[in-house]
Amino acid sequence: MAKEITSRSEDYSQWYLDIVNKAGLACNSKVRGCPVIKPYGFAIWEAIKADLDRRFKETGHVNAYFPLLIPKSFLSREAAHVEGFAKECAVVTHHRLMNDPKADGVIVDPDAKLEEELIIRPTSETIIWDTYRDWIQSYRDLPLLINQWANVLRWEMRTRPFLRTAEFLWQEGHTAHATRDEAEEEARMILDLYANFVEEVMAIPLYKGEKTEQERFAGAEITYTIEALMQDGKALQSGTSHFLGQNFAKAFDVKFLNENNREELVWATSWGVSTRLMGALIMMHSDDEGLVLPPKLAPTQVVIVPVPKANDEINLAVKNIMTALKSKNISVKYDTDKKKRPGFKFAQYEMEGVPVRIAIGKRDLANGVAEVARRDTKEKKAIPLNGIADYISELLEEIQNNLFNRAKKFRDESTHKVDTWDDFVKVIEKGGFAYAHWDGTTETELKIKELTKATTRCIPLEPLPQFGMEGEGKCILTGKNSKQRILFARAY
Amino acid sequence: MAKEITSRSEDYSQWYLDIVNKAGLACNSKVRGCPVIKPYGFAIWEAIKADLDRRFKETGHVNAYFPLLIPKSFLSREAAHVEGFAKECAVVTHHRLMNDPKADGVIVDPDAKLEEELIIRPTSETIIWDTYRDWIQSYRDLPLLINQWANVLRWEMRTRPFLRTAEFLWQEGHTAHATRDEAEEEARMILDLYANFVEEVMAIPLYKGEKTEQERFAGAEITYTIEALMQDGKALQSGTSHFLGQNFAKAFDVKFLNENNREELVWATSWGVSTRLMGALIMMHSDDEGLVLPPKLAPTQVVIVPVPKANDEINLAVKNIMTALKSKNISVKYDTDKKKRPGFKFAQYEMEGVPVRIAIGKRDLANGVAEVARRDTKEKKAIPLNGIADYISELLEEIQNNLFNRAKKFRDESTHKVDTWDDFVKVIEKGGFAYAHWDGTTETELKIKELTKATTRCIPLEPLPQFGMEGEGKCILTGKNSKQRILFARAY
Repeated sequence: MAKEITSRSEDYSQWYLDIVNKAGLACNSKVRGCPVIKPYGFAIWEAIKADLDRRFKETGHVNAYFPLLIPKSFLSREAAHVEGFAKECAVVTHHRLMNDPKADGVIVDPDAKLEEELIIRPTSETIIWDTYRDWIQSYRDLPLLINQWANVLRWEMRTRPFLRTAEFLWQEGHTAHATRDEAEEEARMILDLYANFVEEVMAIPLYKGEKTEQERFAGAEITYTIEALMQDGKALQSGTSHFLGQNFAKAFDVKFLNENNREELVWATSWGVSTRLMGALIMMHSDDEGLVLPPKLAPTQVVIVPVPKANDEINLAVKNIMTALKSKNISVKYDTDKKKRPGFKFAQYEMEGVPVRIAIGKRDLANGVAEVARRDTKEKKAIPLNGIADYISELLEEIQNNLFNRAKKFRDESTHKVDTWDDFVKVIEKGGFAYAHWDGTTETELKIKELTKATTRCIPLEPLPQFGMEGEGKCILTGKNSKQRILFARAY
Repeated sequence: MAKEITSRSEDYSQWYLDIVNKAGLACNSKVRGCPVIKPYGFAIWEAIKADLDRRFKETGHVNAYFPLLIPKSFLSREAAHVEGFAKECAVVTHHRLMNDPKADGVIVDPDAKLEEELIIRPTSETIIWDTYRDWIQSYRDLPLLINQWANVLRWEMRTRPFLRTAEFLWQEGHTAHATRDEAEEEARMILDLYANFVEEVMAIPLYKGEKTEQERFAGAEITYTIEALMQDGKALQSGTSHFLGQNFAKAFDVKFLNENNREELVWATSWGVSTRLMGALIMMHSDDEGLVLPPKLAPTQVVIVPVPKANDEINLAVKNIMTALKSKNISVKYDTDKKKRPGFKFAQYEMEGVPVRIAIGKRDLANGVAEVARRDTKEKKAIPLNGIADYISELLEEIQNNLFNRAKKFRDESTHKVDTWDDFVKVIEKGGFAYAHWDGTTETELKIKELTKATTRCIPLEPLPQFGMEGEGKCILTGKNSKQRILFARAY
């Protein structure tokens, strides 16, 4: 199997597509930019969802569901928002088909034209704030801490499975608050929640920061972001949390009576992560043999393969191992398929990124051991059957940590403090983050993008620890004054 | 609060809408027929989802995700299918908006017309079978046992929250098999899975049966259904499971090589339940004070209210009760809100259908008891604090059983074996199931519908036990020969 995938050094982009395909994560459909998420890919997404959903609920959020379709006019209510989304909307104009009078098949029934066109939600701020107007009268109704898991659609021209698709799955939180402080705090709390999840569970190290005005969400006053670095040196925005100020409250006239019986506009946040995280997961850890999954997200954490095939003695030993693993909440699969040889199975589970493989043959049994192979380093060891579950439990933790540390080492080594334009260009060309001074203008930002294809990724919330505290400086391009360094990179 | 809802006897339909509204289950949006599912309603749906999803997985199914949008031409591939769905499709014709050159706001960009229109999925057989063609080559690839949780859209003209909405949430299983027998068995297994879930968890008694040709799913060879009876004597189809034969395999050219290396068409099933179950749940058990929830689906199973308000002594006693309840996996909420009086809280939790309420005051504590009220019968009892968690654990089971038995008694008493047209009309007018002979023709079925508004609900899989075994007979309308009795009722 492995020979069927392109190596990273040969063609990183094709390598990614090969893994998506061969590991059974997604495949194309006949609808442009709308791939099918296959069962194995979806099982990973379900694990992501379950963990995040628990974190949202632990922080007081509840789920709800708002309509897929949004009246076209809603989009125009918030000026920046319409600017950001109108150009990539799928528009519903009719509500019926009819038999084609001239040929086989069906055509759009011209009599079934909608009075007002509906758009498929690219994000739900507008329909949600139109609803919140009815839900919020008094400070007693606040805060509203609501999340929804949903599909959204943005008509992207160039798409890539998981990373950029027309339809994608996500969660979008939409909260309403009585004060600016509370809303700002919510937006930052969610940023930390996202960062903790991505680092602890997905084993992806992040820089947390604020987006520049140019890169902000359409309608936000502050956009916080978590930024990861993929193996090819390109950054990937992995989640965003927005402080929306009173923009949507103004646009949809959402007011409340405060404790002093005075009318005020409501403060808002919104925040989301999507199936894009799947793309980050794949690109962060995988190798030329296939997918590599952090144990905390692997649908199957351990696979057991009999060598060359199962027999009663092996079955009995495996049964004991499985019982011991399951009692530790470790998911395990025993592959007794007789139609496939061990070598084929090994390659298949490597392709699928199963973190630990146990192989057991007659001779192993005679020696009271099994061969344990870890996916991340491909090390193999003979481990005594006695106590093997404890060993594997620790090994899974070690793999989780190793993946994170490996990625962090790469990220840190690929983050460069630069003070000259030449160095800046070199870093960007090579791939990685350039940590540089910038004069704070959109003009300079766009010029840098034009010259190097690098964009501002974020203004870090704290100075990067590896470089220590630093003060003001001079813009890398214009030489003008700069208050602090920010992170640049080419990005997905 | 309770006085704000219409009584069932006054206006059953308005009573339903009042409960949906006052219990915080759903509300209207600006998009016709697309309500918002509010957090409390969604929490109940999440409980339904979690239980069903576990049952699907235990029976070998996996989840995946297929595109929301379907090329218009896909719909025409299966003749019956297009007939059933083309007239209620939302059609996407454009992929971009633009600023209106003549006024504020945005208009559809005429240059962004799609080459082929896309429809929002009313159900996903077509796009899924178009995908299965690539996934299935050999008998080794079968069976495919795939489910998806998704939103779908059917442009219904008359809508009612949960019962009939344009957009709704559901699960749709789509399985592919090498043999007719295996596919038929799958369709029946799922019917039983649905029936067990609805009876055991939702406490709704059912008749299981097969739909007549007229009432079958568009594209199915057999449609199995579970039918419930609401308090107003109308039936509600609560879930369906279809044996699709080779219809979709033919339409999308999905073939496999069997063990003898011969090419064959694949056999199919599809099956679904939706947020319509929420409508059944509300209508089945609730009363003039509000929602009544079976304990197995209640987001909060027990609420504790201090009377008239909390103090240290009460808090301590409540803490002990809560610890004991939580250790039994019972969800419990302690309402210490000082702004609301106990009577107001009692009415609110009755409206929300919380199965058990515990009220504790000073005098109760002195006597070592608390007042326990059950929502289903509204009985109240002083229960010793010592052992109260055991009592409540049993009480929750008793409530679950009582709701089912109450509903079953009503359903059985409202199911009438009828042998004359007069009796048939009487039963239908009064509300309930008429168990009657029918000559098996669509013509008679439609005539009966025209005369009485009653439809065939199902051909029971087994003779109804309360009436014993029975043989052939004469059609209730035409007097022609009939092989077995079937169930008629007016329906939602």
